[in-house]
Amino acid sequence: MNRTRLDRLLGDLDTDGYLLDASQNDANQLYLSGFSGPDPFLTLYADGAVHLLVSGLEYGRARTEAAADTVERHADYDYEYGGREERYDMYARFVTDKGVRSVSVPPRGPVGTADALRERGIDVVVDGDDALGVVRAVKTAEEVDAIREAQRANEAAMRAAESLLAEADVAGDGNGGVPGGEAGGDAENAVEPGTLLRDGEPLTSERVAEEIEVTLLRHGCALDETIVAGGAQAADPHDRGSGPLRANEPIIVDVFPRSKATRYHADMTRTFCVGEPDPAAREWYDLTERALEAALDAVEPGATGEAVHAAACEVYEAAGEPTFRTDPETETGFIHSTGHGIGLDVHESPRLASGAGELEPGHVVTVEPGLYDPAVGGVRLEDLVVVTEDGHENLTEYPIEFVV
Amino acid sequence: MNRTRLDRLLGDLDTDGYLLDASQNDANQLYLSGFSGPDPFLTLYADGAVHLLVSGLEYGRARTEAAADTVERHADYDYEYGGREERYDMYARFVTDKGVRSVSVPPRGPVGTADALRERGIDVVVDGDDALGVVRAVKTAEEVDAIREAQRANEAAMRAAESLLAEADVAGDGNGGVPGGEAGGDAENAVEPGTLLRDGEPLTSERVAEEIEVTLLRHGCALDETIVAGGAQAADPHDRGSGPLRANEPIIVDVFPRSKATRYHADMTRTFCVGEPDPAAREWYDLTERALEAALDAVEPGATGEAVHAAACEVYEAAGEPTFRTDPETETGFIHSTGHGIGLDVHESPRLASGAGELEPGHVVTVEPGLYDPAVGGVRLEDLVVVTEDGHENLTEYPIEFVV
Repeated sequence: MNRTRLDRLLGDLDTDGYLLDASQNDANQLYLSGFSGPDPFLTLYADGAVHLLVSGLEYGRARTEAAADTVERHADYDYEYGGREERYDMYARFVTDKGVRSVSVPPRGPVGTADALRERGIDVVVDGDDALGVVRAVKTAEEVDAIREAQRANEAAMRAAESLLAEADVAGDGNGGVPGGEAGGDAENAVEPGTLLRDGEPLTSERVAEEIEVTLLRHGCALDETIVAGGAQAADPHDRGSGPLRANEPIIVDVFPRSKATRYHADMTRTFCVGEPDPAAREWYDLTERALEAALDAVEPGATGEAVHAAACEVYEAAGEPTFRTDPETETGFIHSTGHGIGLDVHESPRLASGAGELEPGHVVTVEPGLYDPAVGGVRLEDLVVVTEDGHENLTEYPIEFVV
Repeated sequence: MNRTRLDRLLGDLDTDGYLLDASQNDANQLYLSGFSGPDPFLTLYADGAVHLLVSGLEYGRARTEAAADTVERHADYDYEYGGREERYDMYARFVTDKGVRSVSVPPRGPVGTADALRERGIDVVVDGDDALGVVRAVKTAEEVDAIREAQRANEAAMRAAESLLAEADVAGDGNGGVPGGEAGGDAENAVEPGTLLRDGEPLTSERVAEEIEVTLLRHGCALDETIVAGGAQAADPHDRGSGPLRANEPIIVDVFPRSKATRYHADMTRTFCVGEPDPAAREWYDLTERALEAALDAVEPGATGEAVHAAACEVYEAAGEPTFRTDPETETGFIHSTGHGIGLDVHESPRLASGAGELEPGHVVTVEPGLYDPAVGGVRLEDLVVVTEDGHENLTEYPIEFVV
């Protein structure tokens, strides 16, 4: 955590403090408290100090683990297992005891707590500009290292996925099935020609995702939303993919693990094709590789997220592919933004999109152009980079190769 | 989803509708929308119908997957990549277009959205009684089956953990290390006597948790917060455990996976001891097994969560162990509630705790008494049960045995 930056940005707000009511599932809470608690707890930033209020169950751990100046527990406010209103009474006392009469809260903070504090005379203001998110967007060297380490695990997982695809047999090409095995032959006969096979059984999106996630666990990371999508499924950027994979068509593999130790994320996408892609898919891949390079070239301090997005869009638009810039309603072409910040959240500030502001050293962003159309499928390539003083460093060390 | 129950409980509220602004990470959102979207979207329940508002990126998937009566996208409100205020304008129009002038929102719904809608003339009321949580607490047969299936995966993972422990060597007992291997012998000499060994290396909490989580993935479930805690670590119910495990002391293994397919959770805890527990630990285990049985015996429709909790407490109190009932400030003894509802959230209604209300058929709850003291360690046993018309069904099929 960059405490100087925190003090400056939160100090600029027109309230006495910044209040979080959230569990470890909230990135702001993890960042400001430095504490992993499974149930919601309070963190108050005021006068340059961080104060925690936790249940008795979390007290011992919070005192040793939290990055806080003070840690209090419910019993310090004579609260046991009382009702809702008594709990809010405790919250109000915790805040006012610090001399705080007004607090900023993030837009997604809980309305129940906000309303209850207002009823108790505390002014609660929504921090619409997301000051804490802006603080979090600029990473320290330690945070960058955490993301880099997660990306190493990510690359191991991507290698495991690529190997499964590369080693797959293809139904109908004479090599399918268990070598010499009757069962394998039967399975091959039962599936459509072109289906990828492993040990004579169809190789599914789920099976590849499982291999990715097991590899991530073995490398200290977790993820349960892996995207392994081929064919028309790949034309929907949020489709996670399901069922048998096929040869000769693009397969998007998008992996965004979180380190269990640091809780920082990595993110990478590659698109693979087993066999021979058709010319349209090949052209899309080449275009997307050029769009990735153009966008990466544009990443430097002072460049806007909009300019980076424009660099990718221009490659596609010059080739006649629709983008949201040329057609806001298009459902094919380049139908998402070029990238997003990443850290304790997998999606955080800054954005690489229309209207996005200037990049700063320490911003860590994904760069992920892609093309989508159910008639062709989908192609996406994604690297992870950190903005440096004089450009950027690519944190991704995985080759870009289509045919496996 | 029990639509009749939903209509009754949400229909009783004094507002025109119930509004959610949340992603798939929110159990209410998953339940009401039936849709898994990684970014926040709106779900409005009004006049017995469920309406969704999603981004263009989610539109196709939402129309085919969501359990909604209508699905609209941002473009239907001429919103593209506008600013924050334009987005809230869209939200207000989405709500008022349905004839809704007042909405209930859950206590943990986002304050930014609530305040913005209020500024736009919509009355936003916090549903402090958590009507949607009360609806979710009663499971349909299909939901119970989803939980039962997750518990089967959980049992496979627990078996994997128990096997790792049972097969471990113990440093200093002459059997440690790789059979006949020099490296093993070296490792054994380097570690404290009593440390559990696998292939001559200390067997750690992290290694056992990894095996549990890999097994869960292989069975279609995910989890990244497994508890494998021995010795003094086990005396803190929320300590996930780290470092080498040891013989002759209780090791708490608490596993609460989520099915990737259904998103429903299971939950189970067992406490194991490799070697010979000391008399205090043995007594704790026997007491806890009796507390579990007493609490299970009390689970039936019409019984209160408080009564079930009391049944567990009474076993401990009769043996002279402190509980929160006899000493609200105690840091040793039985220092948590007896259980919690489980479903799309790992912790949800109802509670088995002081002040908790009546159980109903369809409630799925954990029953998990335990004892904690850094001088002894920790012991906890947890089963998962569903309340039936005439008692309960235990969804857990894992033996209760201390010494492995």
